[in-house]
Amino acid sequence: MLSFRFAGAVLFAVLACVSCAEESAQVEAVSVADPLQSWNDSASKQAIVNFVEKTTDEASPEFVSVAERIAVFDNDGTLWAEQPLYFQAIFIFDRIKELAPEHPEWLEQEPFASVLKGDAEGALAGGTQALMQMAMATHAGMSTEEFSAAVTDWVNTATHPTTGKPYTEMIYQPMLEVLQYLRANDYKTFIVSGGGIDFMRPWVERVYGIPPEQVVGSSVKAKYEVIDGKPTLMKIAELNFIDDKEGKPVGIHQHIGQRPMMAFGNSDGDFQMLEWATSGSGPRLGVLVHHNDAEREWAYDRDSHIGKLDRGLDEGPERGWVIISMKDDWQQIIAD
Amino acid sequence: MLSFRFAGAVLFAVLACVSCAEESAQVEAVSVADPLQSWNDSASKQAIVNFVEKTTDEASPEFVSVAERIAVFDNDGTLWAEQPLYFQAIFIFDRIKELAPEHPEWLEQEPFASVLKGDAEGALAGGTQALMQMAMATHAGMSTEEFSAAVTDWVNTATHPTTGKPYTEMIYQPMLEVLQYLRANDYKTFIVSGGGIDFMRPWVERVYGIPPEQVVGSSVKAKYEVIDGKPTLMKIAELNFIDDKEGKPVGIHQHIGQRPMMAFGNSDGDFQMLEWATSGSGPRLGVLVHHNDAEREWAYDRDSHIGKLDRGLDEGPERGWVIISMKDDWQQIIAD
Repeated sequence: MLSFRFAGAVLFAVLACVSCAEESAQVEAVSVADPLQSWNDSASKQAIVNFVEKTTDEASPEFVSVAERIAVFDNDGTLWAEQPLYFQAIFIFDRIKELAPEHPEWLEQEPFASVLKGDAEGALAGGTQALMQMAMATHAGMSTEEFSAAVTDWVNTATHPTTGKPYTEMIYQPMLEVLQYLRANDYKTFIVSGGGIDFMRPWVERVYGIPPEQVVGSSVKAKYEVIDGKPTLMKIAELNFIDDKEGKPVGIHQHIGQRPMMAFGNSDGDFQMLEWATSGSGPRLGVLVHHNDAEREWAYDRDSHIGKLDRGLDEGPERGWVIISMKDDWQQIIAD
Repeated sequence: MLSFRFAGAVLFAVLACVSCAEESAQVEAVSVADPLQSWNDSASKQAIVNFVEKTTDEASPEFVSVAERIAVFDNDGTLWAEQPLYFQAIFIFDRIKELAPEHPEWLEQEPFASVLKGDAEGALAGGTQALMQMAMATHAGMSTEEFSAAVTDWVNTATHPTTGKPYTEMIYQPMLEVLQYLRANDYKTFIVSGGGIDFMRPWVERVYGIPPEQVVGSSVKAKYEVIDGKPTLMKIAELNFIDDKEGKPVGIHQHIGQRPMMAFGNSDGDFQMLEWATSGSGPRLGVLVHHNDAEREWAYDRDSHIGKLDRGLDEGPERGWVIISMKDDWQQIIAD
């Protein structure tokens, strides 16, 4: 968005000075600059550009009013990486280690004991129930503000096990450009993720330019109480909402209240979100990011436990969805 | 907002033409026009203007960034009227009459039988349980799109029992001006209402300039299904969330994810919302609309079943909240 604002500012300055032919030429150069610079000139890129152009050109039969320009993005695997493990799972493990001194019983109690021994596989062996137990132990029993501070502290200090980068730098440059390009064309951009809504909100504005109120995610319940005279929202150990699969269209309805025009995902957990978005009337675009670049990122799809993409690969093309090949469509993957 | 945009456009044109003294004078007249024209020059009005000025002036020690400028408004009794009955309750009664041919059993079954006899008091005699039964019968068992169409049809045709106006014209002109004034100063305006989120969304953008994604309200659960090949969100007869009293700070957290700077309400159902908003750090403003004008609107507070305002009247002033006297502070009440 910054580059667009800059182009606008230059344009303004030049319009105010109609005789300066030189500066006028400079503006033209700025305004035709490619908003999707990190993309190869592929069919995927063209499909996104064509869609934005036809829906924002008043002369187009597929023009869409600004109020209806809603675009939704999954987070894990779509905006940032998700290997070797969802980053929120790593946060959970790190939090368990941090909170362990207050919970001596965890040394003997699974799945916590495995986490404290550094055995992630053992910790996850208990399946959904174990994961939920760890999520509740680390995401509840504290105020929303305490949790937000813990997340902020973690994203400021933790680093990715293989790249050594902070997690908030494991984000995809081509997708950042799509977010900026859409906002420059008056699309509102939302995150709709299976990840925790309170886990994302502390950093998504800084990293993606998406404000907290445009984040939809999974959540535990919260309770309002005045504690020692201080109004407090406590996160409680009870599941509120799972924003995944069939839950995504529900989360979209609850938070946004209108059907998105565009939906971007990368796994079968996003299938229903794309299905819902693309089955409305008028112009619609569904996009799936396919992780097929083992050299520059990771390659996984049909058989992966994380970010499994199977049905989307089979049915996506016949539904008119764009399948992005990270290997062929993206010049650069991770943002600098 | 339109008038502000217009002032901006005029200002731009004049800056581009620095020698036109006449037009310059015209701009000044536009830009000093009172944004709260329907308000008497009262302490309440001054408190709102002072708050906006000190939080948007970069030179002020209480300046607040645009990202943090969040203002929340209750709906019933704050933005539109709520007498002789919450308008959504009237919608429920009207829907029961409309749906009655499909439910012959309702003729014998309370609370429906009373509604069909035109006996609102009898229908409400069963308390919360009866109300919930009627809400579920009229707000569930259909798709979100069918419900939205039913609401739109109702607001386009139903009229208020005593004034004969459409319900969407029973709105307060001074509050419309506050909404526009705040948005012109880069505040994001949200509705946070005990009313149904799906009941408000179809019309609040047209009436208040508030988009569907900036509405928080009560809701039933929804379920995503592909029915005969058509992706559908069904509203199901199970309570999802009650956005009232202690629920309001929770709804704010879930939807907005940050604590509002300003909160406007009119009843004790808004107490916790104002308490939450005004107990954050930095500048905060809580405002309660007091219905005390029986001549031009209605007068009710401590003993009313609808919009009861008791604790707020007692504790509001000592908490620094502004109590708006509709009688003394507002030159005009209902918008033209």
